[in-house]
Amino acid sequence: MSRPITYAQSGVDIEANDVMVDQIHSHLTSTYGPRVIDVPWGFAGLFRLDYDEKLFKKNYRNPVLVACTDGVGSKVQVAAKAKCFDTVGIDLVAMSVNDMLVMGAEPLFFLDYVALHKLEPALVAQMVKGVAAGCRQADCALLGGETAEMPDTYRRGDFDMAGFAVGVVEKDRIITGKSVRPGDVVLGLASTGLHSNGYALARAICFKRAKLKVTDVLDELEGRTLGEALLAPTRIYVRSILKLIAKYRVKRVVHAMAHITGNGLPGNIPRVLPPDCNAVLKKASWPRPTIFNFLQKTGPVEEDEMFRVFNMGIGYVVIVAEDFADAAARLLLQAGERVYHIGRITRGTGKVVLKD
Amino acid sequence: MSRPITYAQSGVDIEANDVMVDQIHSHLTSTYGPRVIDVPWGFAGLFRLDYDEKLFKKNYRNPVLVACTDGVGSKVQVAAKAKCFDTVGIDLVAMSVNDMLVMGAEPLFFLDYVALHKLEPALVAQMVKGVAAGCRQADCALLGGETAEMPDTYRRGDFDMAGFAVGVVEKDRIITGKSVRPGDVVLGLASTGLHSNGYALARAICFKRAKLKVTDVLDELEGRTLGEALLAPTRIYVRSILKLIAKYRVKRVVHAMAHITGNGLPGNIPRVLPPDCNAVLKKASWPRPTIFNFLQKTGPVEEDEMFRVFNMGIGYVVIVAEDFADAAARLLLQAGERVYHIGRITRGTGKVVLKD
Repeated sequence: MSRPITYAQSGVDIEANDVMVDQIHSHLTSTYGPRVIDVPWGFAGLFRLDYDEKLFKKNYRNPVLVACTDGVGSKVQVAAKAKCFDTVGIDLVAMSVNDMLVMGAEPLFFLDYVALHKLEPALVAQMVKGVAAGCRQADCALLGGETAEMPDTYRRGDFDMAGFAVGVVEKDRIITGKSVRPGDVVLGLASTGLHSNGYALARAICFKRAKLKVTDVLDELEGRTLGEALLAPTRIYVRSILKLIAKYRVKRVVHAMAHITGNGLPGNIPRVLPPDCNAVLKKASWPRPTIFNFLQKTGPVEEDEMFRVFNMGIGYVVIVAEDFADAAARLLLQAGERVYHIGRITRGTGKVVLKD
Repeated sequence: MSRPITYAQSGVDIEANDVMVDQIHSHLTSTYGPRVIDVPWGFAGLFRLDYDEKLFKKNYRNPVLVACTDGVGSKVQVAAKAKCFDTVGIDLVAMSVNDMLVMGAEPLFFLDYVALHKLEPALVAQMVKGVAAGCRQADCALLGGETAEMPDTYRRGDFDMAGFAVGVVEKDRIITGKSVRPGDVVLGLASTGLHSNGYALARAICFKRAKLKVTDVLDELEGRTLGEALLAPTRIYVRSILKLIAKYRVKRVVHAMAHITGNGLPGNIPRVLPPDCNAVLKKASWPRPTIFNFLQKTGPVEEDEMFRVFNMGIGYVVIVAEDFADAAARLLLQAGERVYHIGRITRGTGKVVLKD
């Protein structure tokens, strides 16, 4: 009779899981507000939607829950290559919360799924540290998560992440883009770099074509390493945008918003444009971060393709009523954004027109 | 100057994505109830928590949102090996909704993340078909999802899935286990097989030690192929358990519940036991599905290890007040469950005691 086989021998390390749970607990609780009901070792995360206590009463009249899920694409591959695991968590949160923000929703909580070759507690703790940092930036609770050790699916050193965010918006305050009209001003909020899109192309250019290393220090990138430039965390626009919406809650001057992700400005703005409107953008109206020039030249990549794949320096777009454009831009600036008046809404066919 | 590089050349197929979106749309809408606000091409999924219309008025007084995330572990590897992609989606839903059910929560909606080597629309459609089937079984809406094509992270034919579920429970109806007391009866609900746990060990036994193929037809498995036996979808207990809770809403005879996942009966029941109670289970009180005997013998695996890794035939546990145990069991039976009186709560130290 052969020697009995155990679960541990089949490659799953239960003790490492316990160590990890201890290490990440303080990251989780750093994101908790009074609406989280803490259930250690519970089967699920609990979040009070209405908050009855006198001082903080916050009830929704007709609450609509808003849910998003996203990964960070192959930015995880760059993180693995650079052995830098504590910032992709910020990207993960950003991808989902910026998406729900487009509807006017306030993020409530977030959950993460991390899958990897081998459960190294310190490494997972780094990842969750990043997720918690993103959650704090977005004022949402990291309510739970799952770490999956899958040695036969992921190669040594490789991992993947998925994020899931839930928010809430009053039903009659959902921002849909239906009030967009010719004359509206398109405000662009600066991105911090590639954010979390276009990494298949960026990696092909940097690592396959140009044979660069993540540790290479490049003049074209203002002396940063390639890894630092590629891994700059996605900006989270939650606080400034919620401030803007709150300020103009009655006047409703925010007609539409778009999170600039895969397919860039020409792909994402049309998602909130009425079919009889165009957004005419002037490319020279905002500065292009160095990473995009570097990728375009190194590729080389044609200009149109650059705009179809990358955000090109604008991570989030707000379409506002003309009369309030300057005031809205000022508010966003004071809230910490770099804001550019990048274009106008005209009559059209639901498209983005890019002008030199 | 070298030939310009495009996004498509870097391995991402945008057209395949469009084809896929078309193919999965009907699966998504098959799960929609009137509380889903359909936003085609929206940035996020929308779900109305309160439903005001006269006929279906359903408002929560103090709603607590309950959120879970999980994957299906290396069951995806067995699915890939068997090229059977339309049932792991059921497992994915089951893992999360059965978890939230433990708190007494009603599932509202679900989102899935699928990551794979190459985006083959027909294959992703199979996966999402399974997810939608699971959502219909759990009466929750498949509100959205993300498909990530990551050729450098996943090997050809490999994939991974993560699921996210959100439900709701009235704050004063959360089931925590604090009312469990000696004398309570432990009811066990039959599992349909391994569900989604212990696959590292099961695969090590079947494929590495015994060199079996997923297509092997085995007498020990009642003439099923090994693939069929290993891929039997996880049972979703939502409808029957919500019926039970609703029936005894006032009497509150359901004192605690546990979803039997990783670490089996001895690992999961203590999560809801008071520290001064034990659950004493009699192993012979329920039938053991053939797959467990097959794995134990083929391994070989020691009896204790089997119980620590696998559910051993019980997928969900309900701890009820003694006087209502028979009535509760009858209700669950009528709701379609196979129910066994598997043990009792005694004074103790928060542990499971397994008796022959």
